[in-house]
Amino acid sequence: MFVTFLTDFGLEDDFVGTCHGVIKRITPEVEIIDITHGIEPHGVLQGAIVLASTIPYMPVGVHLAVVDPGVGSDRRSLALRGGDGRLYVGPDNGLLVPAAEKLGGIEAAHEITNLEYALEPVSATFHGRDIFSPAAAHLASGVAVEELGPAIDRATLARLDVPKPDVTNHRIRARCLYVDRFGNMQLNLTGRHVERLGIEPGQQVELELATERYYAVAARTFADARGGEIILYQDAYENIAIAISGGSAAETLSARPGSEVRIRVAD
Amino acid sequence: MFVTFLTDFGLEDDFVGTCHGVIKRITPEVEIIDITHGIEPHGVLQGAIVLASTIPYMPVGVHLAVVDPGVGSDRRSLALRGGDGRLYVGPDNGLLVPAAEKLGGIEAAHEITNLEYALEPVSATFHGRDIFSPAAAHLASGVAVEELGPAIDRATLARLDVPKPDVTNHRIRARCLYVDRFGNMQLNLTGRHVERLGIEPGQQVELELATERYYAVAARTFADARGGEIILYQDAYENIAIAISGGSAAETLSARPGSEVRIRVAD
Amino acid sequence: MFVTFLTDFGLEDDFVGTCHGVIKRITPEVEIIDITHGIEPHGVLQGAIVLASTIPYMPVGVHLAVVDPGVGSDRRSLALRGGDGRLYVGPDNGLLVPAAEKLGGIEAAHEITNLEYALEPVSATFHGRDIFSPAAAHLASGVAVEELGPAIDRATLARLDVPKPDVTNHRIRARCLYVDRFGNMQLNLTGRHVERLGIEPGQQVELELATERYYAVAARTFADARGGEIILYQDAYENIAIAISGGSAAETLSARPGSEVRIRVAD
Repeated sequence: MFVTFLTDFGLEDDFVGTCHGVIKRITPEVEIIDITHGIEPHGVLQGAIVLASTIPYMPVGVHLAVVDPGVGSDRRSLALRGGDGRLYVGPDNGLLVPAAEKLGGIEAAHEITNLEYALEPVSATFHGRDIFSPAAAHLASGVAVEELGPAIDRATLARLDVPKPDVTNHRIRARCLYVDRFGNMQLNLTGRHVERLGIEPGQQVELELATERYYAVAARTFADARGGEIILYQDAYENIAIAISGGSAAETLSARPGSEVRIRVAD
Repeated sequence: MFVTFLTDFGLEDDFVGTCHGVIKRITPEVEIIDITHGIEPHGVLQGAIVLASTIPYMPVGVHLAVVDPGVGSDRRSLALRGGDGRLYVGPDNGLLVPAAEKLGGIEAAHEITNLEYALEPVSATFHGRDIFSPAAAHLASGVAVEELGPAIDRATLARLDVPKPDVTNHRIRARCLYVDRFGNMQLNLTGRHVERLGIEPGQQVELELATERYYAVAARTFADARGGEIILYQDAYENIAIAISGGSAAETLSARPGSEVRIRVAD
Repeated sequence: MFVTFLTDFGLEDDFVGTCHGVIKRITPEVEIIDITHGIEPHGVLQGAIVLASTIPYMPVGVHLAVVDPGVGSDRRSLALRGGDGRLYVGPDNGLLVPAAEKLGGIEAAHEITNLEYALEPVSATFHGRDIFSPAAAHLASGVAVEELGPAIDRATLARLDVPKPDVTNHRIRARCLYVDRFGNMQLNLTGRHVERLGIEPGQQVELELATERYYAVAARTFADARGGEIILYQDAYENIAIAISGGSAAETLSARPGSEVRIRVAD
């Protein structure tokens, strides 16, 4: 059985390793796949986007995710069962919902309240270790979600506001959602949005960030551009993104998650 | 069988991956849990603290730890057997002792000298690869600690000076031991120390760092504080720590490991 | 069966985790060893050097490596069979060749073209996920390299220019190839080169970087030097390297990969 694991814990501290230890003590035969622990601290929206993007590539199993600025408050701890047999464990702050809805929908939602499946004592600040990792380990060993606590109404699950682009036939106001290690900027756009402007590979496109204007070319891949050229392309997760061939787009365009990007076809 | 692994190697280079390879070549069926490799370079005290904090969450196995500024000198290489059946492998610089003593005490200490259980040739600068990883792999496959080399007197093991706080009924002089990814500052204090000042949840507390003074509130968890408020709390490893709700305490207070923190109840 | 994995993907994003998921969905019983994912972005030469240095420490298996600035261009995707039974998967940009040649030589080279062994659809920008990881997973499950695509002439494989040192009996002009976490600078030199100058342990050596001159001592290990002393030594991978006892050589000498270092015996 697989447990996938996504957090904002980073790898400098012991938090991820400690959760691995907790899971392995409970269910030694489980195998853990670390999706990433590089979500920005408390970046619930970023975590939800990355989890939803990557879940189709993961084996069916228990999907443990912890980005949890509300730890210690009255936010609920969740175990969800998806329509396709996947299980999800994490805080009730919207983190899990987009992934579950992308695949099989949410078939059952339970609040984790049964302390038989938690570490004793439960700390006030590290539910990843004391509640979520043990719950994931027990689910992976065959415990049913119903055992972890009472069913809750799916309509009451916390949901995130994903910023929507503003798209007309002439221009798009988008937002940068994510910047990766290579400086590629993922936008809150899909192919459908840019098609509405009639943008096609090879076409020149105008980008505006803050008060600066840049020229880019619509491309299929980095290799279609000359070195240093800005490109607008569909990335491997089917989002529209901005890159620079041989450089960092985010650095050149001074962009970061949240930055507004205005796009129109160049004259 | 499990090998847990803690170092200051970082993950940018191949050092950790190379040690994994060495272990797997010797004992393919062993499972490795990476506690962390983010200990600051040569941070023996930090490594010892993190190992002792996390060991209770780890399955029983071989606990390999390498923070080793004295590699190539005459410091000894150690294999320890704990009273609870755990085994420890690492340099004789104090790194392993607090973890072993936290759990079952040290039942036997051996110097690793038997080159049958090392890689050939042993390099002068990477004993993690050439001595410690092979030793851990062989122990995990069932080799007895006695096989690795001669018993040594436990009284001769190197020990670290953990800085002690200075506590009166009126004020505490503490030190920051560790700053985590979230900017939370772990102090060299336990609940017992702050109770002596009569500090209770909800109470205002005065913190002094260098020449700056800050007001904090004693809290059970981040969620008990308003955004931006400094809190003094017991962290998940039962140390007293300082955090800022929704921010980085270490940044706001300009603190780092080693910084002195003076604490008293606010008037 | 083992798959070793080396990339420039970093660990902040999901790229590595996603590839793990892809491999595990195809061949759940395979075990993945992450050599490193900290190769500098697009650092093909650095990746090739690290792969060749570490491969002797890895169990025999499938060696997957992705540092791929040419993704989406017409560079070929490769599967190689080494003379010692190891298999290599990655882009045809020189990344794999030094490792394969270090051990058993290249016995067979195939271009990966068979889409039965790729994810559908193949993205234009993430062949690590869509082509290379699936190919490695299928090889690990017993598929023959011949199945992945047609044999190609080994003489047509892309090769890297590794910068060669300029060595006389009096001085060496070398280059820094790599700087590790500890600030140690690996040079493009082996013991043979420095022996030609008659450099022996204990001897004083003059280093020149840009317009600055430094004195170093030839040493066997860090422990042979006084704190703050610069040492020239043979590192654990048998390259000549520069370190500072208790500090960062790269920082003190303002060096980075590519920097020229001139070495001669001090008067």
